[in-house]
Amino acid sequence: MAASSLDVVGIGNAIVDVLAQTDDSFLANQKLTKATMALIDEKRAETLYAGMGPGIEMSGGSVANTIAGVASLGGRGAYIGKVGNDQLGQVFAHDLRATGVRYETPALTQGPATARCLILVTPDAQRTMNTFLGACVELGPEDIDREIIAAAQVTYLEGYLFDPPRAKAAIRAAAEIAHAAGRKVSLSLSDPFCVDRHRAEFRDLVHHHIDILFANEIEICSLYETKSFEQAMRDVRGHCEIAALTKSAEGSVLVTDKEVQRIPSAPVAKVVDTTGAGDLYAAGVLYGLTHGYDLARAGRLGSLCAAEIISHFGARPETPLKSLAATAGLL
Amino acid sequence: MAASSLDVVGIGNAIVDVLAQTDDSFLANQKLTKATMALIDEKRAETLYAGMGPGIEMSGGSVANTIAGVASLGGRGAYIGKVGNDQLGQVFAHDLRATGVRYETPALTQGPATARCLILVTPDAQRTMNTFLGACVELGPEDIDREIIAAAQVTYLEGYLFDPPRAKAAIRAAAEIAHAAGRKVSLSLSDPFCVDRHRAEFRDLVHHHIDILFANEIEICSLYETKSFEQAMRDVRGHCEIAALTKSAEGSVLVTDKEVQRIPSAPVAKVVDTTGAGDLYAAGVLYGLTHGYDLARAGRLGSLCAAEIISHFGARPETPLKSLAATAGLL
Repeated sequence: MAASSLDVVGIGNAIVDVLAQTDDSFLANQKLTKATMALIDEKRAETLYAGMGPGIEMSGGSVANTIAGVASLGGRGAYIGKVGNDQLGQVFAHDLRATGVRYETPALTQGPATARCLILVTPDAQRTMNTFLGACVELGPEDIDREIIAAAQVTYLEGYLFDPPRAKAAIRAAAEIAHAAGRKVSLSLSDPFCVDRHRAEFRDLVHHHIDILFANEIEICSLYETKSFEQAMRDVRGHCEIAALTKSAEGSVLVTDKEVQRIPSAPVAKVVDTTGAGDLYAAGVLYGLTHGYDLARAGRLGSLCAAEIISHFGARPETPLKSLAATAGLL
Repeated sequence: MAASSLDVVGIGNAIVDVLAQTDDSFLANQKLTKATMALIDEKRAETLYAGMGPGIEMSGGSVANTIAGVASLGGRGAYIGKVGNDQLGQVFAHDLRATGVRYETPALTQGPATARCLILVTPDAQRTMNTFLGACVELGPEDIDREIIAAAQVTYLEGYLFDPPRAKAAIRAAAEIAHAAGRKVSLSLSDPFCVDRHRAEFRDLVHHHIDILFANEIEICSLYETKSFEQAMRDVRGHCEIAALTKSAEGSVLVTDKEVQRIPSAPVAKVVDTTGAGDLYAAGVLYGLTHGYDLARAGRLGSLCAAEIISHFGARPETPLKSLAATAGLL
């Protein structure tokens, strides 16, 4: 196996977030399910946006947030995802590159606009997401850069990639290239509704192609159609080398064939917005695993990164994670 | 004089802010003068943006921030300003309308993009602004809606409007309509460099057409070419009905022919970003003056609104100002 020149390459839906504060009655009126992600078409996006309060725009996208987090920790990251040839696409590309992430996927020259996620944040700090996939539907196997995949210790994928039509083929191509190069492949299950939509394919992917799995409690239980987290944990063991399973404020559990590490969440003065909590947890864990950390230490770094992101609006770090990790003795 | 159906109509450069954290060495390398606004062309905007860290995008524009603040206090606001027919223009329009502001200026159908202000925030919470005026250069007298101006108790203008070529004529038209309808005209001097660029015209405007003037210490001293704030205050008295002069953390002074009110700044737990401090001070004062407050009470409301805005990133309120003002006994 050649020496890696990258720690993690992510493949995901390239999205700009539009975050606005709201209340529970707005969610009810709009028939939105709190704390989940719904796919919406452009027309619905326009209607919903018209009803939302003033917002802030920030680069988002689950895996892109993770890769930005890896870079903020000082790791070497790359990203593959499709934006449109428009202002929000330029914002997305700028923000990744400005974080030090290698990002070279060509923007769509014509067709749908850059994807947007309308994120409604309620006073309980929960985020309810509505994604218009836009240009993401055009991501395909031709966008998978063989050289980048082979150069990265881990190729990290999001379950959300099962929603746009051509991205599954891209996932399969990337996983094959990575494994052929002796690298690891990692997946986040992304969202409970997403697991519902693609359960059989997800299970097949997890059992045959994934080395490192990320999921929250609801997602892993949905994958194995059980109400018991402990049962789901038993089900996943042995199928993946490592499963990192998050339980919100209760912390996380990292399991391998031989080991179970239970990690508490890191303290947060005030939880403002949970957008990106799972993404940044994954950033810490992946940074740790690609830097020789043991499971427990990687998990603690994940908790630390998640704590930073939920202390403010938006899913990209405000404080360089490298300095936070150094202060916490985790670098 | 007909009953007013609006409290304040603002006319300004319609801008989307791009805020990024930086340090003093970046400002030095880019030859930027801290805490001021510089005009840049599109090419320079691209170069500077490429060098900046990851950002967040938020609607901005000095007067637009003020009008959003008036609306957040429960006031009736309208806005006139020019965006391009693009994604950032849609963001700008949405955010104003979502705050309850009447905003009907048609977007440019072709020509420059929506204006952007690249705002660099240093660890001392100072903001250094670089504005690409874009579509704002096309604002002209034909955009001044006579009915809206005549319906508002106050027409509020920004000194920045002297930068785009056609906006001066728009200012003159608006001031004439307002005064003919028996309304007040208010101006913010905006920025010390802006005063330097247009001193003679500013003085003429202030002395002959402005009823309510907003300026910070440096701007008012620059207008009268004096180093003494007290001297500048004496110079402005009698020329405007009211001058509201801000002194950052030292608070503000509101002066009329007969009265001088010194108002302390409102307490802030941590100053994060001073972007919009003056804009939101003006929002509080203008809300107060259009709701029958005496000078001191209007000034205190200005301080309260400024305190909210400097406690977080960006120049639009995160917390509804109405509830803050109610809690403070200022509604």
